[in-house]
Amino acid sequence: MNPISPLAAAESLTEFWSPRVIAELDDQYIKVARLKGSLLWHSHEAEDELFFILRGELRIEMEKGEITLKAGDMTVIPKGVRHNPVADEEVLVMLIERKSTAHTGAEMVERTRSIAEQLRPL
Amino acid sequence: MNPISPLAAAESLTEFWSPRVIAELDDQYIKVARLKGSLLWHSHEAEDELFFILRGELRIEMEKGEITLKAGDMTVIPKGVRHNPVADEEVLVMLIERKSTAHTGAEMVERTRSIAEQLRPL
Repeated sequence: MNPISPLAAAESLTEFWSPRVIAELDDQYIKVARLKGSLLWHSHEAEDELFFILRGELRIEMEKGEITLKAGDMTVIPKGVRHNPVADEEVLVMLIERKSTAHTGAEMVERTRSIAEQLRPL
Repeated sequence: MNPISPLAAAESLTEFWSPRVIAELDDQYIKVARLKGSLLWHSHEAEDELFFILRGELRIEMEKGEITLKAGDMTVIPKGVRHNPVADEEVLVMLIERKSTAHTGAEMVERTRSIAEQLRPL
């Protein structure tokens, strides 16, 4: 068993908005992603989603307002809450979410990544 | 909804080995703790346990060896694996574990903290 550095894992990513699984915790996956620009408005009807910022600053737009997270900050977007992550500058994040969580909820777009794609080794 | 700083939450703790819940994610609690010295050998038969180091360096002894985690590192101790966290110097950690997880597994000692104690507001 070796230590895992989520920051180093995220730094190794070359593609934006393409989360990769780095560990599992019961029925949750621990993921990292490199973000720039905005994803899209979506929600996860059955799963909460944790964002932990490794580097940079992320805004998460929601229908009732937005939240700005700096490096070292986290938040949990509750199930059913429509949200849109926006990285005005490049951001590295750790995500924790149930294994059943669909990347972009019910929205299927070109950049939507399947769980199989997210499970590819780094 | 406000950003949560696990580091700031952990810095506010005054008691060692007394985890406090800062958020929930489906059936998991996000906790922070201030550690110094060693806890005790125990296991969680039904739950994995995630350690993420916020400050300092933590050794986790296991029967087949030990792992040393530095700030920014994480690991998941799989269910059923006996372990003993050791903080040679003071460490601040974030823990993620199922809501059902008993602090010290089946071992009940003076410093064992109930879930109710862990849920007290910071």
